[in-house]
Amino acid sequence: MLLGKLACVLTRRACTSRGVVTVRRYCCHKSPKKLRVTEALSSQEIGANIKIQGWVRSTRSQKELLFLHVNDGSSLQSLQVVASSELNVRGLTYGSAVEISGDLVKSPHKKQNVELQATHIQVVGECNPVDFPFKIKERHGLEYIRQFPHLRCRTNAFSSLLRIRSEATSAIQSFFKENDFVHIHTPVITSNDCEGAGELFQVEPAGREESPDEENTGFFDVPAFLTVSGQLHLEVMAGAFPRVYTFGPTFRAENSQSRRHLAEFYMVEAEISFTQSLEDLMAVMENLFKSATECVLARCPEDVELFHKYVAPGTRQSLDVMLKNRFKVITYTEAIDILNRSSQNFAFKTEWGCDLQTEHEKYLVKHCGNIPLFVINYPYDLKPFYARDNEDRLRHTAAAVDLLVPGVGELCGGTLREERLELLRARLAHAGLEDAYQWYLELRKFGSVPHGGFGMGFERYLQCILGVENIKDVIPFPRFSHSCVL
Amino acid sequence: MLLGKLACVLTRRACTSRGVVTVRRYCCHKSPKKLRVTEALSSQEIGANIKIQGWVRSTRSQKELLFLHVNDGSSLQSLQVVASSELNVRGLTYGSAVEISGDLVKSPHKKQNVELQATHIQVVGECNPVDFPFKIKERHGLEYIRQFPHLRCRTNAFSSLLRIRSEATSAIQSFFKENDFVHIHTPVITSNDCEGAGELFQVEPAGREESPDEENTGFFDVPAFLTVSGQLHLEVMAGAFPRVYTFGPTFRAENSQSRRHLAEFYMVEAEISFTQSLEDLMAVMENLFKSATECVLARCPEDVELFHKYVAPGTRQSLDVMLKNRFKVITYTEAIDILNRSSQNFAFKTEWGCDLQTEHEKYLVKHCGNIPLFVINYPYDLKPFYARDNEDRLRHTAAAVDLLVPGVGELCGGTLREERLELLRARLAHAGLEDAYQWYLELRKFGSVPHGGFGMGFERYLQCILGVENIKDVIPFPRFSHSCVL
Repeated sequence: MLLGKLACVLTRRACTSRGVVTVRRYCCHKSPKKLRVTEALSSQEIGANIKIQGWVRSTRSQKELLFLHVNDGSSLQSLQVVASSELNVRGLTYGSAVEISGDLVKSPHKKQNVELQATHIQVVGECNPVDFPFKIKERHGLEYIRQFPHLRCRTNAFSSLLRIRSEATSAIQSFFKENDFVHIHTPVITSNDCEGAGELFQVEPAGREESPDEENTGFFDVPAFLTVSGQLHLEVMAGAFPRVYTFGPTFRAENSQSRRHLAEFYMVEAEISFTQSLEDLMAVMENLFKSATECVLARCPEDVELFHKYVAPGTRQSLDVMLKNRFKVITYTEAIDILNRSSQNFAFKTEWGCDLQTEHEKYLVKHCGNIPLFVINYPYDLKPFYARDNEDRLRHTAAAVDLLVPGVGELCGGTLREERLELLRARLAHAGLEDAYQWYLELRKFGSVPHGGFGMGFERYLQCILGVENIKDVIPFPRFSHSCVL
Repeated sequence: MLLGKLACVLTRRACTSRGVVTVRRYCCHKSPKKLRVTEALSSQEIGANIKIQGWVRSTRSQKELLFLHVNDGSSLQSLQVVASSELNVRGLTYGSAVEISGDLVKSPHKKQNVELQATHIQVVGECNPVDFPFKIKERHGLEYIRQFPHLRCRTNAFSSLLRIRSEATSAIQSFFKENDFVHIHTPVITSNDCEGAGELFQVEPAGREESPDEENTGFFDVPAFLTVSGQLHLEVMAGAFPRVYTFGPTFRAENSQSRRHLAEFYMVEAEISFTQSLEDLMAVMENLFKSATECVLARCPEDVELFHKYVAPGTRQSLDVMLKNRFKVITYTEAIDILNRSSQNFAFKTEWGCDLQTEHEKYLVKHCGNIPLFVINYPYDLKPFYARDNEDRLRHTAAAVDLLVPGVGELCGGTLREERLELLRARLAHAGLEDAYQWYLELRKFGSVPHGGFGMGFERYLQCILGVENIKDVIPFPRFSHSCVL
């Protein structure tokens, strides 16, 4: 109601400055067509009477004229607005929210086709430039804006990131849909611990005294955790569908402040039935990476360019190399040989049987020409109970694959799953997990099929294609040890 | 490896029964084309040599012939396989996993175009019919199959449900994408409690003694909970984008065994900037419901028909009424009048100021011809701090809307949000929440815009369109009090 009245006052004011005809035109007869900024910028309707709504990104006053740039988040670009100085109302500052009507006219500038000749300007929400943490015409670093999780979407860089993240999400969903994967919502709360170890978050009702009927066993009667992977639940579905996937949040209670880890992050996980080869999994991983990336590059080129130009120069060239070449494949044993032949001093051991560390992964990718690299057939003892024994020698290697990419290291990890009941039972028994995983063993009893799958860290994917160093800068609300803001 | 050998043995066996020519054709020259069952069923290539992989849904033996139905989850339909009795290998029972090659031939039956004349049958995974909880040719009820969360996807009903859920997910994502909403991953772990009350789950690292550096404040330094809604985080984004949405898991630690509640469920939430009317929100809700439903009906008609035919007869007619009519709108005050004029005895009070209960909601929808019904302008005191004061009388009503649908009751709830700093601050102060929500108040300081949004319960949506009574039957892995299986 209040806003309605304000608009009316402002309309009258603006109209007065243009004479009676204008008053009739705007106040009584025809309301301007509401357009998003991106629609206005690509509009062919020169002369059209339009209205835009958004936030002021710059202001410049000349004697009789006022120039504004208004952005509404529909794209990285702002619309230039030109107005008579009379329309320079109180509160029209950097950061304020505005509604502006006027005529779309040809712009004299090369950078844009059109601009808006304003007839009304209304400040919908003021923004005190002293208190607002972002300043006009300053390029704030990602680290600085990270301090304001409730406001950083107001910067160019982070609004671009969010549009890219949205497009990448959609591109990944489309890839799986087009390839006949059924989407499954795997649970967040689970009584399993997929990795057999791992740092888990536990879940209990807040501040509740245990009531007598719960018999001190908690809300669910069993200890309940936040999922570290949807894999085992996808494997359930692999017993009834040819291909399934999930794309949701996963959790690690790791006490780490690294640039590579979050307590809450997103994983894309896929599971394929009736497969007996890592090649099938590698084909899906490579196609997923390439298809999603090409889609993102096509759908938000300007947003991606912001990162490739200002945040991480060189990333675009590196990305083109990844997209143009077939990904490479080496065995774990070959990888260890390469590391041992190298002249580089590694902080961690490179003996056969040791896990590959990030420093090793990055070296291997570089060694292979900065083309994404599949490393296959890891030592059996390094892999979880569900990994399929290659039976090359007694428990020598397992059918496991990691995808390593430039800048990031491990992006995806997958295995063929041990579908043979007796081998799986023996391994679970050896780990003392046979009771806990009775249901999982049953999957191998009733129409078991050879199957395999993989997971891709979504934030690492975004880091890889954009060249963003800190994982906290590619997720809307990062959670990590000592930090859960908002 | 083992499977490779088996396949070879079986190939030889099958080939032998067909003579030398066949042996050459299948063993040495050309491997059959792998098709999904749904592809085979719609294939025009009569005579093609194909291979399918799936699970046996029925077996019937005649003197010289064997008839199978094989389903691979690619659709509700199974492919009929006809084979010589010689191919009736050990383990070929209901529920077993098979690979079958042969020739696609015209079927003599009216129900299907094609069938597979098998030349090889290989049992990939056996299934003991005594232990397997589902029996051949029995139609098991939803309640029975719910006892086997790791196996119920093997039934027709639940695999249909999962395909529908996947299509509905995709349809909702497409709706928002086509309408220029940016997708936001709102956090699962949060330090907020959106509703100001609510039964929350708290999150802490499992089994960890608090280390000295954590100073007894836990992993995040603040109490951390599982989200009950992504709304407040979407409102952050509504300060930079015209339209945003999220679609993810939300949580309630409600000690309820009802058919309508889960501890973990999915919510679709949208937030729209620069809106001052509930009409804008209602338009999005109605379009979302109709667009997603039409999409699901078009993309998986057979799966939906299973529910409309066997689970909840009458639902299709009811759904058609919903889709063909404009949704109705009444005020809360009118709703109370209708309830008070009714002759029905309600368990809960129907005075102005009382919240509407499910019994009231269902009555109102029925009263309005079983057309979905928006109820608007609820009493101010019933709504959370963020609901916009209508200022019709002193704190009389708030700009809130619920969408009620047949069978389910409340499906969506939304409000315009209080964008005016002073009104919001006063309300938060009154509730003692001013300190906790400083960041939320800041959103109103720096370029605040009138905005609003809503949430839709995804499982309730599925219940509504399919006629499923128990919410546990529309989610892959239900979590509720006393139950967190797998």
